[in-house]
Amino acid sequence: MIEPIGNQYVVARPVYSANAFGEEHKKKLRHHKTLLDHLKVCCSCSTQKAKRIALSLLPIASWLPAYKVKEWLLSDIVSGISTGLVAVLQGLAFALLANVPPRYGLYAAFFPLLIYFFLGTSRHISVGPFPVLSMMVGAVVARVASEDSVSVDTSNSSLSSNDSLLEERQIMVATTVTVLTGLIQLVLGVLRFGFVVVYLSESLISAFTTAAAVHVLVSQLKFMLQLTVPSFTDPFSIFKVLQSVFSQIEKTNIADLVTSLIILFIVFVFKEINQRYKTKLPVPIPIELIMTVIATGVSYGFDFEHRFNVSVVGEMRSGFEPPTTPDMQIFQDTIGDCFSIAIVGFSVAFSVASVYSLKYDYPLDGSQELIALGLCNIFTGSFRGFAGSTALSRSGVQESTGGKTQVAGLLSAVILLIVVVAIGFLLEPLQRSVLAALALGNLKGMLMQFAEVGRLWRKDKYDCLIWIMTFIFAIVLGLGLGLAASVGFQLLTIVFRTQFPKCSTLANIGRSNIYKNKKDYSDMYEPEGVKIFRCPSPIYFANINFFKQKLIDAVGFSPLRILRKRNKALKKIRKLQKQGLLQVTPKGFICTADGLKDSDEELDNNHIEELDQPINTADLPFQIDWNADLPLNIAVPRISLHSLILDFSAVSFLDVSSMRGLKTILQEFVRIQVDVYIVGTDDDFIEKLARCEFFDNEVKDSIFFLTIHDAVLHILMKKDYSTSKSYSSQEKEMKFDFTINTNGGLRYRECQVPVETKF
Amino acid sequence: MIEPIGNQYVVARPVYSANAFGEEHKKKLRHHKTLLDHLKVCCSCSTQKAKRIALSLLPIASWLPAYKVKEWLLSDIVSGISTGLVAVLQGLAFALLANVPPRYGLYAAFFPLLIYFFLGTSRHISVGPFPVLSMMVGAVVARVASEDSVSVDTSNSSLSSNDSLLEERQIMVATTVTVLTGLIQLVLGVLRFGFVVVYLSESLISAFTTAAAVHVLVSQLKFMLQLTVPSFTDPFSIFKVLQSVFSQIEKTNIADLVTSLIILFIVFVFKEINQRYKTKLPVPIPIELIMTVIATGVSYGFDFEHRFNVSVVGEMRSGFEPPTTPDMQIFQDTIGDCFSIAIVGFSVAFSVASVYSLKYDYPLDGSQELIALGLCNIFTGSFRGFAGSTALSRSGVQESTGGKTQVAGLLSAVILLIVVVAIGFLLEPLQRSVLAALALGNLKGMLMQFAEVGRLWRKDKYDCLIWIMTFIFAIVLGLGLGLAASVGFQLLTIVFRTQFPKCSTLANIGRSNIYKNKKDYSDMYEPEGVKIFRCPSPIYFANINFFKQKLIDAVGFSPLRILRKRNKALKKIRKLQKQGLLQVTPKGFICTADGLKDSDEELDNNHIEELDQPINTADLPFQIDWNADLPLNIAVPRISLHSLILDFSAVSFLDVSSMRGLKTILQEFVRIQVDVYIVGTDDDFIEKLARCEFFDNEVKDSIFFLTIHDAVLHILMKKDYSTSKSYSSQEKEMKFDFTINTNGGLRYRECQVPVETKF
Repeated sequence: MIEPIGNQYVVARPVYSANAFGEEHKKKLRHHKTLLDHLKVCCSCSTQKAKRIALSLLPIASWLPAYKVKEWLLSDIVSGISTGLVAVLQGLAFALLANVPPRYGLYAAFFPLLIYFFLGTSRHISVGPFPVLSMMVGAVVARVASEDSVSVDTSNSSLSSNDSLLEERQIMVATTVTVLTGLIQLVLGVLRFGFVVVYLSESLISAFTTAAAVHVLVSQLKFMLQLTVPSFTDPFSIFKVLQSVFSQIEKTNIADLVTSLIILFIVFVFKEINQRYKTKLPVPIPIELIMTVIATGVSYGFDFEHRFNVSVVGEMRSGFEPPTTPDMQIFQDTIGDCFSIAIVGFSVAFSVASVYSLKYDYPLDGSQELIALGLCNIFTGSFRGFAGSTALSRSGVQESTGGKTQVAGLLSAVILLIVVVAIGFLLEPLQRSVLAALALGNLKGMLMQFAEVGRLWRKDKYDCLIWIMTFIFAIVLGLGLGLAASVGFQLLTIVFRTQFPKCSTLANIGRSNIYKNKKDYSDMYEPEGVKIFRCPSPIYFANINFFKQKLIDAVGFSPLRILRKRNKALKKIRKLQKQGLLQVTPKGFICTADGLKDSDEELDNNHIEELDQPINTADLPFQIDWNADLPLNIAVPRISLHSLILDFSAVSFLDVSSMRGLKTILQEFVRIQVDVYIVGTDDDFIEKLARCEFFDNEVKDSIFFLTIHDAVLHILMKKDYSTSKSYSSQEKEMKFDFTINTNGGLRYRECQVPVETKF
Repeated sequence: MIEPIGNQYVVARPVYSANAFGEEHKKKLRHHKTLLDHLKVCCSCSTQKAKRIALSLLPIASWLPAYKVKEWLLSDIVSGISTGLVAVLQGLAFALLANVPPRYGLYAAFFPLLIYFFLGTSRHISVGPFPVLSMMVGAVVARVASEDSVSVDTSNSSLSSNDSLLEERQIMVATTVTVLTGLIQLVLGVLRFGFVVVYLSESLISAFTTAAAVHVLVSQLKFMLQLTVPSFTDPFSIFKVLQSVFSQIEKTNIADLVTSLIILFIVFVFKEINQRYKTKLPVPIPIELIMTVIATGVSYGFDFEHRFNVSVVGEMRSGFEPPTTPDMQIFQDTIGDCFSIAIVGFSVAFSVASVYSLKYDYPLDGSQELIALGLCNIFTGSFRGFAGSTALSRSGVQESTGGKTQVAGLLSAVILLIVVVAIGFLLEPLQRSVLAALALGNLKGMLMQFAEVGRLWRKDKYDCLIWIMTFIFAIVLGLGLGLAASVGFQLLTIVFRTQFPKCSTLANIGRSNIYKNKKDYSDMYEPEGVKIFRCPSPIYFANINFFKQKLIDAVGFSPLRILRKRNKALKKIRKLQKQGLLQVTPKGFICTADGLKDSDEELDNNHIEELDQPINTADLPFQIDWNADLPLNIAVPRISLHSLILDFSAVSFLDVSSMRGLKTILQEFVRIQVDVYIVGTDDDFIEKLARCEFFDNEVKDSIFFLTIHDAVLHILMKKDYSTSKSYSSQEKEMKFDFTINTNGGLRYRECQVPVETKF
């Protein structure tokens, strides 16, 4: 029990070095889990574990039996129908992005819902086409289908729907890419790679989705203006598309442009109303649905297709088409793209799902999501759909209209089924530009994220940099490569953040046990000859030299230089002494020869390594006080430092490179008789150093102290003690002293004769 | 002054929160340098600065005037001659690797020495051909020269020296690549990109050079066995070469194999002798030189070329060839390769140079080295040499034979000049396999670095992983791409190291101000209801969720769950109270209705966000003690925690993602009435949080305390104080109490009536 005494911090205990503390308080023997233990746990078998794994692979088995029919079913039905209607429109719109005829968008929307119902762990996302993924698929389709196409007119491949051979080829590429994407996701999921989502920071996701929105915006331009723009491959595709659009801007179909602008305006206005009166409206106005019905009616009534030559949805064959086998050759050509699509699709789905899982507090399983999405895509691809994930807007509809579980998803599928098999033909006169406008209507929120940049700049420069670089990468390199580059850059910022630590010199404040940056406060106390140096970050290969430099700057000299100077001086002294040229007088030394010049050359020829060795004065009959005057012609810089305390409380790890570097500099300090203390580390740290053979008879494991104050007290005591001891011994042996050690730098060491002789 | 009292740590001071400390000790206003200030310093002009820059661009201007002719010249001459002889042999040998005729190796060795003499900052490295770089150049030569070659027989391009057109083409590619490499290095140097070398850790360099040695070993096989192996491009080139070698192993030229094995054996033996009697030998036995002379003589005397059909060095035209203009078309095809060559070349040269600069204590300038190497390569390329850096073995010779400055390099150049213009023809009968054997003789040291793996495994798993992965990358992907992948992987390990911090729960040990991991010691004291949680690494996007999970594990419950349960319970209580169904009795509550079931459904329909809001009981006439019994049917988990201390002394930074995450979890704790304290941070940390609007009226900036002990004392005092205060108020107002608060969870709050009513 600790008894608080008023508002006072009162402590009295022994000064602890790590060793002293360890002796007083024995550490419990604790078995730390090794890699092997983790593997064992991972590979162990039990009925319970098997059951858990089986359940985790089939999430429906846990949530469906607990389904509250009375309470949830109605909400799910309402939500399912609303979401289903949105899914129809989005399916049609996004199919255009994927460079396939609109009806395939309905297949792409339908099949994933069935699979995800059984395998998904999120209860609120609506799986299916996602504009960015559709675009990525579209780019691959354009590249591969046009390359191998029999038709030479490949530039307007997405619109030449008459060319059934090309269309067949496009579908084949799209489905193959989808299946391969699914396979990659499945494999990653089985290998439990779902954890990679932790590498997507908020800033990165924000910038990435903004860039995706810009990509979608640009991609829809051709439908709004009714231009034939070829699909370009990354990088720089966005600029190529823009160039193509503006180079043929005079060909714009005015009817399409006007229709889409009107639709866009109305959608924006109603979305604003939905937003503003969110609390008052029982259910958001389904403006997309209303506009679709109106637009279809108007287009049909006034025969827009033939009167204004607008492009319409066109033929909607009812029913499904038979499944296909993917083309192995295309697998090889597109594996890189599929990898990007797989990762982007998963990242988007997971980030949306995690928003809802946080909101409604249920667990998500990243790897299971990968498996579910993978199987969705494999299944969808086999039935001529294209790769999907989740669209933010559609999931928003599913959740906001009261969806409770994936039963809502199943009901959306029913709506899609009805459209596909029965009433799809009704949508035939709908303008494609209307679909494009409806897709754009949902981008406002994402594009508004530009405001984030300013906010991040004020908060954290590195995060701001991540945002900007991610945006640039995703725009310039395309989404797949851009995501990879962004994640790489983002990880690099973690290195940057630790690479240039703000090292500081600490001093005592308030004469108690508080140590703060010397520059920050006035009236600090720094014990004489003691430096307290704090490094506030891990030390590793990339910053060990920076650390060394900062340390040298802080103490004011390079220990290596001092060591060398001293060793050189020692050689000279030894030589002089041998030659008998050194006379020790009460006032210091007199060098009776001017033979020092010649010895200079000889010293230069010595291997310089010798000068880096510890100073060995054992063979000399006297001690050398390096801070006193030395014999004529021998100059060694004086240093006042006798103790150096390194505050390592924030040094969370050292690597092998930094350990070697640290040891070198510690050795150098020890060799010039500066005591080094390391404080604030935890026990693991010391153990690791011991394991790495960090300690020897120069750098000892007794240098660790619990806190700065412990080390400072230890130093003060030691200096006090040694001074008083030397005083007392001086007093005791005063009778033997025959010269006074005033400014002479040498002092005779104890010889065999029991007389301590001092000069 | 702090007075040490024996070996005692005695402190008495007030308990400090960060705010209290800040009030007592005013911080100095200190101008922190902004980016703008740094830029200003960087762009400012002065005569001194201009002079310094000029000097740094022409290092010779500083060291040559200080040249000590009498002392250094002799050493430099000896060293220069030895190094020059080695350079001749290595030049010939490495030219084979570069897929160009041997004599070009002499040019490649000669020209860099001239430039580096003027521009280099290292005094000991011997610039010129380096086997790994030569191989990289060779791979490009093979690819580009064979692709565009007029000859169809491209597979044995390196040996078909009769085909002068192909040879011309090869030289053109090699020189163009060299010039482009030099340009890249020059640009990087001018842009001051020399700092990138800090990203090469010791483990990485060790593994990379080992892999390079393996590459060299494999590349020399074809010369030793005298097989015609085509050059393959990365990745997987090494396996392709091995496959090619073993598929035609029966074509081995036995004479070449035997010669090279004998040479290899003798070289190894003598190198061992040199090593063992290093101290006794005045100068290492120049075994390579001796063997060359012998081998040349034997080959000439017995006419090996025609008798055994061995491949010899062949025609050595004396004199230099005229300079060439690089081919711009090749620039485009090879820019990626050139980038790798530039980086690898610089990395190797700098890492070797830094070994000597450390040894002899003189400064190196990374960017100036880049400029020097860049100009060396541009110059060399223009005169038909190929890209160079420094060979470890040759630099070793230059330093160990006493070289003091680059004057030695200049003298090596003279030796090369003599060979090129006069005595080169003497080398014509030398077998190429002898050159290969001599090149292999120097690889032992590098290959021995495999032993590093075991040592690193014991020291640091991550460093061991870096070694292994770098080796694999460099072998499989080739040196250029492999280096990039390794650096990327290495940076990733820095993220890994911080991503899964070993969070721990601390407790007091020895009843003083020492707090250690609770699991490590017995006899710890943990104040009741207080958790002390330590996170020993920075917190950022990749580990914020890990941190949250560990924190929840440590406290034993999820604060969000508790908050929701309490809010749900509160709704029920409020409803019951409204309906008048709640009777408060001395023993607790009696709920007179069983109408709770119906309310369940209603609650479910409520937006779940409401349940995450702070608990607002202001409108209730009583307080709720959540840890006491609540009315019938209302169950809320009890928690004993009232204070949570987060030890953030090793949290060196937070990013925006982690700040948001941290704030969320702190809010959740605050909302369930757990006081949170953060200790051990420095002032910058708090300032940054304030700047990021981290604080509001739930998470206040008064949560910061200087140390764990300060926070613990504060908590103990507060609890003590509040208990005693409530006791005293109870005592004072005892007369108003008419029921005793035994186990009832509700307690009437102070109403308008001055009677505190307790149930």
